[in-house]
Amino acid sequence: MDRFTRRSVSRMQGYVPGEQSRAPGIIKLNTNENPYPPSPMVAKALQALPVEELRLYPEPTALEVRKRIAAIHGCDIDSVFVGNGSDEILALCTRAFVEDDGDIGFFNPSYSLYPVLALIRNVATKPVELSADFSWRMPKAYKTSLFFMTNPNAPTGMLHDRSTVGRFCRQLRGVTVIDEAYVDFAREDCMDMALRYNNVLVVRTLSKAFSLAGLRVGYAVGAKPLIAALFKLKDSYNTDTIAQRLALAALSDLHHMKANVRKIRQTRARLSRLLVERGAFVFPSETNFLWLRPPAVPAEVFCKRLRERQIMIRYFCGPRTADFVRITVGTDEQVDRLIEAIDEMGLVGVPSPRGLAVKRKGCR
Amino acid sequence: MDRFTRRSVSRMQGYVPGEQSRAPGIIKLNTNENPYPPSPMVAKALQALPVEELRLYPEPTALEVRKRIAAIHGCDIDSVFVGNGSDEILALCTRAFVEDDGDIGFFNPSYSLYPVLALIRNVATKPVELSADFSWRMPKAYKTSLFFMTNPNAPTGMLHDRSTVGRFCRQLRGVTVIDEAYVDFAREDCMDMALRYNNVLVVRTLSKAFSLAGLRVGYAVGAKPLIAALFKLKDSYNTDTIAQRLALAALSDLHHMKANVRKIRQTRARLSRLLVERGAFVFPSETNFLWLRPPAVPAEVFCKRLRERQIMIRYFCGPRTADFVRITVGTDEQVDRLIEAIDEMGLVGVPSPRGLAVKRKGCR
Repeated sequence: MDRFTRRSVSRMQGYVPGEQSRAPGIIKLNTNENPYPPSPMVAKALQALPVEELRLYPEPTALEVRKRIAAIHGCDIDSVFVGNGSDEILALCTRAFVEDDGDIGFFNPSYSLYPVLALIRNVATKPVELSADFSWRMPKAYKTSLFFMTNPNAPTGMLHDRSTVGRFCRQLRGVTVIDEAYVDFAREDCMDMALRYNNVLVVRTLSKAFSLAGLRVGYAVGAKPLIAALFKLKDSYNTDTIAQRLALAALSDLHHMKANVRKIRQTRARLSRLLVERGAFVFPSETNFLWLRPPAVPAEVFCKRLRERQIMIRYFCGPRTADFVRITVGTDEQVDRLIEAIDEMGLVGVPSPRGLAVKRKGCR
Repeated sequence: MDRFTRRSVSRMQGYVPGEQSRAPGIIKLNTNENPYPPSPMVAKALQALPVEELRLYPEPTALEVRKRIAAIHGCDIDSVFVGNGSDEILALCTRAFVEDDGDIGFFNPSYSLYPVLALIRNVATKPVELSADFSWRMPKAYKTSLFFMTNPNAPTGMLHDRSTVGRFCRQLRGVTVIDEAYVDFAREDCMDMALRYNNVLVVRTLSKAFSLAGLRVGYAVGAKPLIAALFKLKDSYNTDTIAQRLALAALSDLHHMKANVRKIRQTRARLSRLLVERGAFVFPSETNFLWLRPPAVPAEVFCKRLRERQIMIRYFCGPRTADFVRITVGTDEQVDRLIEAIDEMGLVGVPSPRGLAVKRKGCR
């Protein structure tokens, strides 16, 4: 306990991101990165970049990127905010839309950053428990200042349907941030709600479908007064010159992104089938990862055994998540290697009938 | 007034950065950018960058950059934090070291971002008025939770001496952040205080001396518990892969940076002399800019007239600053053009004896 640090900060733990190993030979299926490279236009933009220009400050509002995003979604540039990764935008939302006596809502389980953002903002949380099968029905008389709705959800991979999402947004007296980090892999999205309702932001990222996790670019679309509030609070130059150039290039080649997404969806279906055949219970995914109860051994053991074979997947301890693992959909070759390892180590059970019993467990 | 936005945010104005014009022919002396390009090692690192790697998340803690900074300053890597520009670090400090009923101190005048950061954090400010000649004596019985001490100060360019700074830090019961954005251009620095006192952070940036304003990399050095607090609060991946690589390259070529600094200091002396000869009152600068009361015409007019000649300098309205302008030290050629314009437009007065009368004025 440091006497100069704010008490709420001293008490809290920071967010722990998934392990970022660069070890050679590793099959990295733990942080939902895209297995395919970004658009060739990104490489071209990188090569064309005059290094001399880096001595100058970036355009403070990422104007060219916002113009492109506005064109993609058919809205005004004043409805678009570009952030240093969507994480920056989520953090800004906690400062823009929550009074000191307000609170922040999210699903449980969902993106584990949200409760950390509430701790950082030093406000209460109002988690909404998903049911045992991780589905969701709109709660009655639920109130919160700011609700982070990951859709499709993480780490479950499941998509909540548009009609429920729409009713929730209309009913909530606070702001709903629909975090569509994975939406490019899904069958539908909620962007129109950001453009129709005055209390909805849709947040997207270039980290997943656009293969640019290393670049840190995310964006928000929504009602102009909400976007204006984010602009007031952001760091003066929150996105750098290179990120702006490369993001513009990526967003100008949707064809490349969509082709990668198609491949990943095909591999997702294949991986899901192979895992079900081996006794895993696999949830229906609308993302670039699978959420499953592994066969034969407890989830944490399953994860550790694969690590011995240089395969990294993600395990989240906690009462709602401890029975499950999250596996990023890699290339078909990576999937082959994963299945090979599972078979060779005998991490195989009897294919279960469609059904699920969730036991509550602590972390081991 | 948007009913979804926090009241304090609705009331406030955001920070307005200096104009970032890219118009051809413009001589841009308004935002303290370095007129020389970054190290050739930065260009090399940019060319060597495998674009494919951008699909992966960055190293979350900028480990390699922190190792290099620790080596430069002779400290542990746990004493170093790397941010998305030093602006991010300043903002994090307001969340790490100020309770909701705390306050934030800074000089008046100083970096105009500080009061905006206090508004964003929704806490009170405790500005310390500099004297009429912008010098400072340590105030008696002054208290604040967090003091931002720009040293050398901006926009005045003046260096506060080490002994006063040291006494201030020892006496303050809160945290002093010594913002050394311009210190590479000065005759001395206070880095040792960050490594000796448990309530001091020194913040530096690669935007000025390293010619990398477009990259957004700053860093903080200080007591480990203070640094640990910043880590808890930062966005998960606050600096991107490219910025980390290029920052490492720049920090590995201090020779290039120092050679540029030498040139700028020479030009600074020359520009200062030329302006004094034309009747300007020029303050002693330890930075890459000059703070002066222009000759012949009011400061705002001086600024506007130069703009007609495609020369951008900075004017800050407000009671303490309205009589003065800030001019970034450019190349010698840019200085020639500036002086030419001043002479041709007759913005010239009688060389004043060393002395200064500050009148209080509102913004026009």
